[in-house]
Amino acid sequence: MIQFSESAKNMRSSEIRRLMSLAADPTIISFAGGMPNNSLFPIDAIDEIYSTMPLAEKQVACQYGPTQGYPPLLQSLKSYLASRGLPVDDSQSVLITTGAQQAISLMSKVLIDPQDRIVTEYPSFIGAIAAFKSYGAILKGIDMDGEGISVDGLARALEDRFLKPKMVYLNPVFQNPAGTMYSKKRKQEVLDLLLSHNEVCLLEDDPYSELYFEEKDKDLVVPLKAMASKDAPVCYVGTFAKIFGPGMRLGWLLGPRDIVDKCELAKQSMDACSSTFTQVLADEYFRRGKLAPYLAMLRPTYKRRADIMLSALESLMPAGISWTKPRGGFYVWVTLPETLDSSDVFSAAIKQGAAFVIGNAFDPEEKRNNCFRLAFSHTPEDKIEQGVRTIAQAVKQLLF
Amino acid sequence: MIQFSESAKNMRSSEIRRLMSLAADPTIISFAGGMPNNSLFPIDAIDEIYSTMPLAEKQVACQYGPTQGYPPLLQSLKSYLASRGLPVDDSQSVLITTGAQQAISLMSKVLIDPQDRIVTEYPSFIGAIAAFKSYGAILKGIDMDGEGISVDGLARALEDRFLKPKMVYLNPVFQNPAGTMYSKKRKQEVLDLLLSHNEVCLLEDDPYSELYFEEKDKDLVVPLKAMASKDAPVCYVGTFAKIFGPGMRLGWLLGPRDIVDKCELAKQSMDACSSTFTQVLADEYFRRGKLAPYLAMLRPTYKRRADIMLSALESLMPAGISWTKPRGGFYVWVTLPETLDSSDVFSAAIKQGAAFVIGNAFDPEEKRNNCFRLAFSHTPEDKIEQGVRTIAQAVKQLLF
Repeated sequence: MIQFSESAKNMRSSEIRRLMSLAADPTIISFAGGMPNNSLFPIDAIDEIYSTMPLAEKQVACQYGPTQGYPPLLQSLKSYLASRGLPVDDSQSVLITTGAQQAISLMSKVLIDPQDRIVTEYPSFIGAIAAFKSYGAILKGIDMDGEGISVDGLARALEDRFLKPKMVYLNPVFQNPAGTMYSKKRKQEVLDLLLSHNEVCLLEDDPYSELYFEEKDKDLVVPLKAMASKDAPVCYVGTFAKIFGPGMRLGWLLGPRDIVDKCELAKQSMDACSSTFTQVLADEYFRRGKLAPYLAMLRPTYKRRADIMLSALESLMPAGISWTKPRGGFYVWVTLPETLDSSDVFSAAIKQGAAFVIGNAFDPEEKRNNCFRLAFSHTPEDKIEQGVRTIAQAVKQLLF
Repeated sequence: MIQFSESAKNMRSSEIRRLMSLAADPTIISFAGGMPNNSLFPIDAIDEIYSTMPLAEKQVACQYGPTQGYPPLLQSLKSYLASRGLPVDDSQSVLITTGAQQAISLMSKVLIDPQDRIVTEYPSFIGAIAAFKSYGAILKGIDMDGEGISVDGLARALEDRFLKPKMVYLNPVFQNPAGTMYSKKRKQEVLDLLLSHNEVCLLEDDPYSELYFEEKDKDLVVPLKAMASKDAPVCYVGTFAKIFGPGMRLGWLLGPRDIVDKCELAKQSMDACSSTFTQVLADEYFRRGKLAPYLAMLRPTYKRRADIMLSALESLMPAGISWTKPRGGFYVWVTLPETLDSSDVFSAAIKQGAAFVIGNAFDPEEKRNNCFRLAFSHTPEDKIEQGVRTIAQAVKQLLF
């Protein structure tokens, strides 16, 4: 009989996964998956890139590459990061990862021992929660308001001598799942607080900041990493999933040299390097200026979907239910009265043909379940109202 | 000051890496990298596949896929595995991984706790050694002869009450780095021995078995997994790196459902899924029958390179030096007298323009260094003799 490792003994196929698989039924209107719709990918750009790519570049695309990343992509990525105000000088390293998920997993591998504490927002990203737990971390969630994580709550957690967190994980722009955009003031307060605890590493996850709905918000989506001093222990995770395609499995980690170089060593034995094939495509995508027009198409598209969803919630949800009003990204976070359980709403809604992700999935402490996440990124405009109606009916049914 | 995890404290940029980077200089004739030459990739096949791919398939290629793998590729891979005599019925699971390296890392994550023992061949694959160590395993290497691992040595290790290994890692066909092909008899002896210790998992790594030089060896490259009973704890790792291209970053793990399903859960938080883009290409590569003609081109190509290398060694190496005579794969393993250190040979050879990988890199116990690995897969035919000559001169210089 084979004995599994301590880490594997705690892994089990989650209830969330079972629910997500129910939501995959094509007859269901699903607000479950946090992904773009297939029709939105920049296929024309990829066609143009591939069809005009020199033979030698195609050959390189088929070969192993350096663990740190395909050198031309590292270069074009650094230009992009610099244009967004992020530090890319010699004090920092950039590592190309197999999706943002791998960056989070690598950071856990190099920083976390079993029983170490990590502080996150409540609610927080499912994938990060799973990665942290797979390394034996104990998680503490801190509530958010409309401007970001509670500074008081974060201060208490950082100063708690029993908690002694090793890492703080935040997603300050169009947060997954809450849709929250941190205010400038809140970002500065959080940074000031963290910098007075320089034994704690900040892991900033920023997949959605390019997807603001209004041009005027452009100045508000500045990452904490761009505001912090270069020597502060702040690591920044980004992804091509939302600005190119998740199927490329490309993300990156930007941070102080000593931390990112350790992650590179860990990556070497984890998957050697990320796909050179998709890295070559991503590099050409940057160099040929395909990103800006793609974003110019995506932003109003997601805004229209969010608008339709928010209007439908406004007109269809009963009193006593509240939800966030995102200014970008993919998500709306719905809060039910504490007496309601989002799993019951899910069961009722899916019978009538609509789905979402229950709140418990996003609770780092797995306690609360009176919320749920709606993703508007994947659902065609003409289906959104009907999906919200179905869910609103399920809520009413349980409420009255 | 940030504190790294116990696992990260032991990670350091290895001497091997520094040597490999020296070998990357294009003016050096390098037998270091275990990779195909760029000119050998099936670019025509990829061009044909991409240029005739329907829009909907390209869109799927850009999207997230299931963690287990892109369903059509799982199907075509299973047909391929079945055609090679491997079990793919309901007792087994198949998982697509981000290269074979990830499969080895996942197996370590779900089976290995710090201080657990793993038995490997001596010498063994660098990437596996690094993955095992990154999970805190202690490694024990067992010598090989021309027919495979020593059965006596393996029996002693399995029965050692202090060692109590958790896993045995073998690469029975055209072994990396030794080039050894296990005899049929040896494979059966190893299997019989392992099956009497069913608390020990066998991890069989098989990247090279399609690359036999002679058609008559086709029946000798049968994996242990194909010979074992279905319920035996034998997991089989394969890769597209040698039969398509390493830049795709695709491999697979085949094994008993309970073990592979744990690996799938671990993969979910490690990188969510492997690149759908390259999985779609790999699936079409199988379905359009591109593998067989590609292998028919590769086999005589690698045979020619091996022949040139073996003739050069025969005519140029001084007495007292021995080497393996591979019947497939990428590698020749050279053994020096015990008084010589392959690092010294490396230093002398690289000054004269030739490189290889020193033996210590392949020693799971990091003790011995009187051997080195020559890869013939990457070097153009007309450079091989000159490279061997340079290395032989370096050996002579140190020997006399």
